[in-house]
Amino acid sequence: MNAEIISIGTELLLGQILNTNAQYLSKSLASIGINVYYRTEVGDNQKRLKSVFETALKRSDLIITTGGLGPTEDDLTKETIADVLGLELEEDFEALQSIKNYFEKIKVKMTNNNKKQALIPKGSIALPNRQGTAPGVLIEKNNKTVFMLPGPPNEMMAMYKEHVEPYLIKRGQGIIKSKVLKFIGIGESSLEEKIKDLLRSDNPTLAPLAGRGEVSLRITAKGTEAKKVEEKISNMEKLIRARVGKYVYGVDDETLEECVGKILVDKNQTISIAESCTGGLIADKLTNVPGISKVFDRCIVTYSNKSKIEELGVPPEILNSFGAVSKETATAMAEGIRKVSGSKLGLAVTGIAGPSGATPDKPVGLVYVALSTPENTICKNYVFNGRREIIKNRAALTALNMLRKYLINLP
Amino acid sequence: MNAEIISIGTELLLGQILNTNAQYLSKSLASIGINVYYRTEVGDNQKRLKSVFETALKRSDLIITTGGLGPTEDDLTKETIADVLGLELEEDFEALQSIKNYFEKIKVKMTNNNKKQALIPKGSIALPNRQGTAPGVLIEKNNKTVFMLPGPPNEMMAMYKEHVEPYLIKRGQGIIKSKVLKFIGIGESSLEEKIKDLLRSDNPTLAPLAGRGEVSLRITAKGTEAKKVEEKISNMEKLIRARVGKYVYGVDDETLEECVGKILVDKNQTISIAESCTGGLIADKLTNVPGISKVFDRCIVTYSNKSKIEELGVPPEILNSFGAVSKETATAMAEGIRKVSGSKLGLAVTGIAGPSGATPDKPVGLVYVALSTPENTICKNYVFNGRREIIKNRAALTALNMLRKYLINLP
Repeated sequence: MNAEIISIGTELLLGQILNTNAQYLSKSLASIGINVYYRTEVGDNQKRLKSVFETALKRSDLIITTGGLGPTEDDLTKETIADVLGLELEEDFEALQSIKNYFEKIKVKMTNNNKKQALIPKGSIALPNRQGTAPGVLIEKNNKTVFMLPGPPNEMMAMYKEHVEPYLIKRGQGIIKSKVLKFIGIGESSLEEKIKDLLRSDNPTLAPLAGRGEVSLRITAKGTEAKKVEEKISNMEKLIRARVGKYVYGVDDETLEECVGKILVDKNQTISIAESCTGGLIADKLTNVPGISKVFDRCIVTYSNKSKIEELGVPPEILNSFGAVSKETATAMAEGIRKVSGSKLGLAVTGIAGPSGATPDKPVGLVYVALSTPENTICKNYVFNGRREIIKNRAALTALNMLRKYLINLP
Repeated sequence: MNAEIISIGTELLLGQILNTNAQYLSKSLASIGINVYYRTEVGDNQKRLKSVFETALKRSDLIITTGGLGPTEDDLTKETIADVLGLELEEDFEALQSIKNYFEKIKVKMTNNNKKQALIPKGSIALPNRQGTAPGVLIEKNNKTVFMLPGPPNEMMAMYKEHVEPYLIKRGQGIIKSKVLKFIGIGESSLEEKIKDLLRSDNPTLAPLAGRGEVSLRITAKGTEAKKVEEKISNMEKLIRARVGKYVYGVDDETLEECVGKILVDKNQTISIAESCTGGLIADKLTNVPGISKVFDRCIVTYSNKSKIEELGVPPEILNSFGAVSKETATAMAEGIRKVSGSKLGLAVTGIAGPSGATPDKPVGLVYVALSTPENTICKNYVFNGRREIIKNRAALTALNMLRKYLINLP
């Protein structure tokens, strides 16, 4: 079965919003083994939508549209598709009831144009919308399957998960599972180089994904028996971990900060942080983890030399002799924050985020990361590429990874 | 002239990357008055690309493709489009020379497959690529204009700005200018409500854009005389500012932190920050501004009550009587950070980012923002909706906006 996604909305063609819906659907369909061969985006214009839908019907078995199901005159998806398929629109009793219930619940008077949302093509199935008013639609006709989903991403995603995915998996008469391995400390091309032969595998398939200083690898297996499908995934995971396991920090949707936060809480290791070039980003990431207040005490962003001396007790001689961006300063910052906070662990970062601040022997992107523990203080240096925000982000992830490795006794 | 954008790459159809190229081109074309009626995304597959391009030729005057210009076997854009247009590929001398120069510059040996990048359809024009090796291509044939641009966003954007936009503006024989007004402290729907009548304007047009707690409004005017076009924009800007000017913090690409950072540096007002629920996000944002080290001294993220007492001198009685999330604590934090840092200004935030931590009289999303100045300390409270990260972001933007209003004497 090959699929086409049609995204409907003039705001897309004006560039006012990014088409995250199409990406979500592409990813989700790929993960259950359905090939997306085309994606089309068209405005709220009946003539053009009609021609796009006719083209899609000729070349695709499954068509999923998003957008244009709302109550206004601009919303033309159902009318247009029903017209192409030669179907009349009729009121769906349950859909109307659920729209009425929605307005009662939010205590807003329902206007007449909202009734339009309960109209669906004759012979189709209305898909309930738990997040909004516009129901989705499923049509099966002439061996083609058409799903019409609402445009707002939260409504679209909930409806996809609840109605579309189970339907497609059932029809596929097979089982598809996937697992994502998340990497830190290795670039996309080095990772691909190390698993080049495995990337050619058919079942399970492997798909590398890169973004924001991190790399992921999705393993997807198909089959008819759940146990065998899981075995395929676990065998592939073993092969990958045998080669690059030390760079794997988590699986599926886990972020590095969630992973680190969980270990800190589980092991009851308290932590405080001293940041210079990252400017609070490490603490910001860590405090995105709910419940982190159990172990995270404080972070001091010491941007000036004066604040490094006053807040962390960094000796002025060290700043004078070695500079603020040095192994000695990073070490003193980590030891200083550990001491003033009384936390078990002290993490510190100092570096040059650019664009200015470089010296002949200290380039933009040079970053020192130090971790002070009850046993000792370790410090490593790195040179990151990219603009200011990218250097900050890479430095923050690298610091969190140093912490993670210490917590689980990795070298 | 109506345009179609064709994005080429299997990674798009797998959902591995978001199609930011199509959004950039859509926005840019809209800003010079060119209507994009269709966008299509197709994989690295000759047959399907061919059919997509043939369809586009029938319905669009201007076709811009991105992707598929690289040196590998997967890169098929030039071959396929030349084939459809009945043109042969030939080596472009200058393009080859510039690829050779690129490899010399980065001191890497050029491989044979890189020569493929210098092939362009006969009669077309090669567009130099300053950021990479693959040149772009411009073809004019049968009243159709085709631009082929590289896939990597930095290469694509640079080439668009340098070659495509000037060409299209010249051909359009008209002048189109736009200006974006950036808002803070007002929601999209309230803003639209207040300028409803202006949104119907034809020339200039107004397009609202929302994202990440901020709202923008793009004013776009067309005409034949630069002076008159600018007048149209400035008249519309005046109308808008007369109604909602107090929410406008900047124009075009400026971020709130850049705006605030610039005023701080210009006025030489030093600042330090105390954060609780925002966890370092305000300092992270502010330190994204190059040169901020001139005025930003330090930030203390006091997550625990103990750290609020030790680092900022918040009296334990205040924490006991009013709680960590209170007007009294926020005020003591702002005054405390101002005192310990010696900065002219002290900014502080305390609140409940959720999902836990709410009490019967203090809901999730309750946030106090305080600013201590040489004159006095002001404190305001807010209740933000959304999940943990969204509450943090809204609180951080609101704190920066309080600072901005103080710096420019807004009530």
